[in-house]
Amino acid sequence: MGRILIEGDDTLLGALREAAQPTYMCTIASSDTGAIEGISIAGASADMRKYTPPADMEALFYGSARCIPGVAATPDGIPSPVIITMAALSSMRLPIFVVDAGSEVAPQTPYVRLGGSPARSVVTGHAVEDAELIFERGWHLGANMAKLTDFLILGESVPAGTTTALSVMLALGLDAEGKVSSTMIGGAHELKQAAVDLGFKAAGITKGSLESTPLRAVAAVGDPMQAAVAGIASAASEHIPVMLAGGTQMAAVAAVMDRLGQADMTNVCIGTTRWVLRDPDADIVSLAQQAGCPRVYAADLDFGGARFEGMHIYEAGLVKEGVGAGGAAVAALTYGGLETDELLRRIEDVYEATVLPMLQGA
Amino acid sequence: MGRILIEGDDTLLGALREAAQPTYMCTIASSDTGAIEGISIAGASADMRKYTPPADMEALFYGSARCIPGVAATPDGIPSPVIITMAALSSMRLPIFVVDAGSEVAPQTPYVRLGGSPARSVVTGHAVEDAELIFERGWHLGANMAKLTDFLILGESVPAGTTTALSVMLALGLDAEGKVSSTMIGGAHELKQAAVDLGFKAAGITKGSLESTPLRAVAAVGDPMQAAVAGIASAASEHIPVMLAGGTQMAAVAAVMDRLGQADMTNVCIGTTRWVLRDPDADIVSLAQQAGCPRVYAADLDFGGARFEGMHIYEAGLVKEGVGAGGAAVAALTYGGLETDELLRRIEDVYEATVLPMLQGA
Repeated sequence: MGRILIEGDDTLLGALREAAQPTYMCTIASSDTGAIEGISIAGASADMRKYTPPADMEALFYGSARCIPGVAATPDGIPSPVIITMAALSSMRLPIFVVDAGSEVAPQTPYVRLGGSPARSVVTGHAVEDAELIFERGWHLGANMAKLTDFLILGESVPAGTTTALSVMLALGLDAEGKVSSTMIGGAHELKQAAVDLGFKAAGITKGSLESTPLRAVAAVGDPMQAAVAGIASAASEHIPVMLAGGTQMAAVAAVMDRLGQADMTNVCIGTTRWVLRDPDADIVSLAQQAGCPRVYAADLDFGGARFEGMHIYEAGLVKEGVGAGGAAVAALTYGGLETDELLRRIEDVYEATVLPMLQGA
Repeated sequence: MGRILIEGDDTLLGALREAAQPTYMCTIASSDTGAIEGISIAGASADMRKYTPPADMEALFYGSARCIPGVAATPDGIPSPVIITMAALSSMRLPIFVVDAGSEVAPQTPYVRLGGSPARSVVTGHAVEDAELIFERGWHLGANMAKLTDFLILGESVPAGTTTALSVMLALGLDAEGKVSSTMIGGAHELKQAAVDLGFKAAGITKGSLESTPLRAVAAVGDPMQAAVAGIASAASEHIPVMLAGGTQMAAVAAVMDRLGQADMTNVCIGTTRWVLRDPDADIVSLAQQAGCPRVYAADLDFGGARFEGMHIYEAGLVKEGVGAGGAAVAALTYGGLETDELLRRIEDVYEATVLPMLQGA
């Protein structure tokens, strides 16, 4: 049993530790919001960003991506948090499912389609087509999964997803200003808020004006992952515990679920990393509480003493979370029975096998 | 416990009866082979045939199709065997998954994509793109499903699928001539054989010449469902029992699995209907034995005394099987604990709710 930081009660952490067969499911989507200069560093460049979600999924299945070499990385070569997810999942016997809620590039893996398409930019004010339909099909998927597994871990890979998280939480009336995390140091809050303001103006909405119609908030200023995961998790939460595995993006999903009122929120928690939970430029605990999801569990990982210098940068506040890294790590440290140091060594092994060859090839 | 006709040993039937949580998964695909005049009656017309697979899946999820009214039917209005699958599945708490191996029209349900496309006609001799890739992704899906369920039931909905079954079995060297079933009375054997002969000539192959390269047989003269289901079932059979739910199409899948040598064939059976097992114009038992899959279990359904005349036509030898109808019925009569008469009444209820309104509207 490894170290977990706990906010709220630990009932669902206990459920995960005792689960017979948890399942990991990761939802991917693209959004033109990611094309806004400076808003995201998920991907080696804005042009390459569309490959990040499928590359993450391919790395989970095959040990490295197929649509690009190695694994996705920032422009400076900092690897995607998928290396954490890979290490955590490979230490357990978890089934892995990919959901494509609207990815520009299809992953070269099996994946579940729900009918969604890549999102327009948040600034358009009509970002997501078919949010209701994606939610409905996600609901059916979640209901079916809940017949097979007794704990569902739901990750995401959506570049620029914290901007769409911010805008949806504001549309639902949460005090979310300055509280979402970022892959970047400092949080890029002004840039995100400016994009959200443009989107609100284009959609003709104001803070809280879509509180009672959360799927309209997603349609206006969100991304397709939010509709998909809200549907999957709402249906599943009626029968089994669900972990929303991600940072402040998942607070937005929880808020959608809570305001829709079709979920059992006592069966829902957020699983994330210490870097998100302790992010000085964000406040996931406040967001989660406002979203009706006060249980936040964070894997207490520290890369400060890692064997590879490339990993130390996580301690400076870059990347932080994604691809369900925190939730998968929480599962490995509880259900998987791994000690924290053991998980760290496994992450170093993944880094050595997948990232070092990229750096040496460059 | 209802009536099951048994060929071979009944070990896997016992496993199904005692299963904790079976899963039903149906793979759909389109093939230009279905455009050959007179080769199939799955669909109200050749133009409408592309809607049959998605319509079948939508009916399973929603009680009636969305891309067409009611349920798929033959040109004479005889309903798709999906009405049997619907009745059987709704009597149990089975999770339902759809796999799209290459359907011309996407179903309006959640569905798993493996990357395949609709097949060209068998007469081209290069019918299926990416058969190896579809198999590989199917393998990953099957390996993941086997972690969640302890019995996998794999159905199909592929118009003209018995023609591609015939051609693949002949390419693998089975004595399959005149032995595949048909949705039509008499079996249309000459027409099918003529199409196969053209395909063999175009591909430059002869009977048995692809015995040791079964995925090349699928690529040349098969359909994408065969590659997908062979992959899913091969991976799953290493861990759990698998029922190939269908008629002679599934004998072709079994033959591909057997010749590839990556499956545990002692964990594989065929589940079908009495209409296929007792088809005077076909011989599934011979095909299954030659395919290395000697266990064939058939639901002993008889529509001769059904409350609706439209159902009596099944006794004349039309339709017979599809959408995993026989395998789903076998599950309902064993795992589900239903008596045969009770299942029949439930099928009548589905007919009344979905088919009668179509006939009255016409």
